[in-house]
Amino acid sequence: MDANGADLGAAEVAEGAALATAGGTRVLLFGPAERIGTVPDGVTVVNAPVSIAKAADPAMAVRSAPEASIVQAARAVADGRADALVSGGSTGAAIAAGVFRIRRARGIHRPALAVPIPVRGGHVLLLDVGASAEARPEHLVQFAFMGAAFAHVVLGVNRPRVALLSNGAEPGRGTPALISAHERLAAAGAGSDAMRFEGNVEGTDFLAGAVDVVVTDGFTGNIALKTVEGVSQTVVGAIRDAATASVRGRVGGLLLRAGLRRFRDEIDPERAGGAYLLGLRRVGVVAHGRFSRTGFARAIAVAERGVREQVVERTQTALEAAGALRRSSSEAPISVSARS
Amino acid sequence: MDANGADLGAAEVAEGAALATAGGTRVLLFGPAERIGTVPDGVTVVNAPVSIAKAADPAMAVRSAPEASIVQAARAVADGRADALVSGGSTGAAIAAGVFRIRRARGIHRPALAVPIPVRGGHVLLLDVGASAEARPEHLVQFAFMGAAFAHVVLGVNRPRVALLSNGAEPGRGTPALISAHERLAAAGAGSDAMRFEGNVEGTDFLAGAVDVVVTDGFTGNIALKTVEGVSQTVVGAIRDAATASVRGRVGGLLLRAGLRRFRDEIDPERAGGAYLLGLRRVGVVAHGRFSRTGFARAIAVAERGVREQVVERTQTALEAAGALRRSSSEAPISVSARS
Repeated sequence: MDANGADLGAAEVAEGAALATAGGTRVLLFGPAERIGTVPDGVTVVNAPVSIAKAADPAMAVRSAPEASIVQAARAVADGRADALVSGGSTGAAIAAGVFRIRRARGIHRPALAVPIPVRGGHVLLLDVGASAEARPEHLVQFAFMGAAFAHVVLGVNRPRVALLSNGAEPGRGTPALISAHERLAAAGAGSDAMRFEGNVEGTDFLAGAVDVVVTDGFTGNIALKTVEGVSQTVVGAIRDAATASVRGRVGGLLLRAGLRRFRDEIDPERAGGAYLLGLRRVGVVAHGRFSRTGFARAIAVAERGVREQVVERTQTALEAAGALRRSSSEAPISVSARS
Repeated sequence: MDANGADLGAAEVAEGAALATAGGTRVLLFGPAERIGTVPDGVTVVNAPVSIAKAADPAMAVRSAPEASIVQAARAVADGRADALVSGGSTGAAIAAGVFRIRRARGIHRPALAVPIPVRGGHVLLLDVGASAEARPEHLVQFAFMGAAFAHVVLGVNRPRVALLSNGAEPGRGTPALISAHERLAAAGAGSDAMRFEGNVEGTDFLAGAVDVVVTDGFTGNIALKTVEGVSQTVVGAIRDAATASVRGRVGGLLLRAGLRRFRDEIDPERAGGAYLLGLRRVGVVAHGRFSRTGFARAIAVAERGVREQVVERTQTALEAAGALRRSSSEAPISVSARS
């Protein structure tokens, strides 16, 4: 785990790691030792004060700063000294370190960043939200199986319902890449134990809970995710204003608070442990930089579950059964475009 | 104006037209005469009972049903019997009829559908939200000037701030088409009286009111717009649940109601009159099928303002000054992909 990049500092990440050891997980923590202080048994601190969490070009930073905490953490995973990578905040650095040091799993075209978005009564897993900007049809097909395997194995959804995010529900809607991916998934998903392919879903509906996994390219996914965040903040802000603008409003807000607490708990981003880096040889979880220790502990627990339940291996099996593994290994090197 | 396609029926559209005549506007209303009934002076009803508002393929419906109300309305605009096209509900049919009958303005590559999204203290104009699925750089550049001209002339924003919707604020972020459009707009917008180019804006920020016009391709714009609608409904639904789940919640909800009414008025979609069809030889306004008579009257008022203030001509002037008009007239025919 990388302790750099968290808004509350490396000590808060270490507290999260300490919480996670209660479940028996052991954590190898890379960060500034002097700011981390004492840790319980089960957490091993490796002094790595160099942070590239704020680097403008994460790919270049990973290549030019091998001593950076996230690069050391990724190398530990690549070497087998650790089973999964957990980041304390910087998405771009975590993706770049994962791609360049842990590398893609066999037969995977592109890694993808998947974010569980809270919907009423559960989560919908949206991917890719920004590991790469564009996606070819075969990438989208793999994302579907990668997301379905993760939703099944780690989030506990049996035969997840998978849809493509498009500008219309009909099969013929969307970009040429999307239409082609739709055809391939309709064929591959038909007899699959790994998922149920539900076709296209629109922006209006993907938060309605009708599906478990929503697949899109990293550009569109990033915009959809950030639009969700922006609108939520706007609406919540307007309600807060109404609940502070007058005495009447303040009393009303207080009375509503208990009812709204359940909703707030439901949409608490710490519950899901962050975003998931899929398609690598090992599991990757990227906590949000705003998390508290509880969120960091959840991120570790999610990674641990992914390792224990062999999500990487089961993703491979599902892709192989669907004939969706990459055949040639001669593909051009991938570029990393993600930023948190 | 097409009276077909409205959820409340053609009679409600006619009532909206009647309201609009109070300002001196004359309305040529195409729809089922027997359901419209009597209308005041200023509204002329043309019996056109055939509706293609629910057609699965609007482009084909426009070609195969010349007697349909929206096609007759568009032809009236093309012939000069009317100055602007207003639709009572079906976006796909209105776009197809506009493109095939009114046709693109000189030098315009593609029409675009622009939607004013209510933000705190005003609106942000998002385009394209679905007139075509994909956009080349030169299309995005034109959308920027088309949106800016409309925001200036009709919405009253002086030198509108224009941004591209992307997955990061830096100029190098986004798809290749977007990066190229960014370069061209930075050059064309620099000395322009027509707009201020503000670079990229992310999904989180485009509703924050930092810019007046947000430009994107129709696929991404459609998903962003519908995500805004979906999230708003989800959050408002959760608050409504909290305000009905208990006596305490109900009292709180009642006390908050007055404070929230202003917010609800601010985001009332009827206020903006619907979506705007830009890039044709004449102004087009597409009211939402859910509108009441007030919204339909607003749609007519917006169209009237566009005509009076010569938004089509001023868009041309701005594009010409920026060197962004299409040069050749030999481009392949465009396809229409929009659906409401």
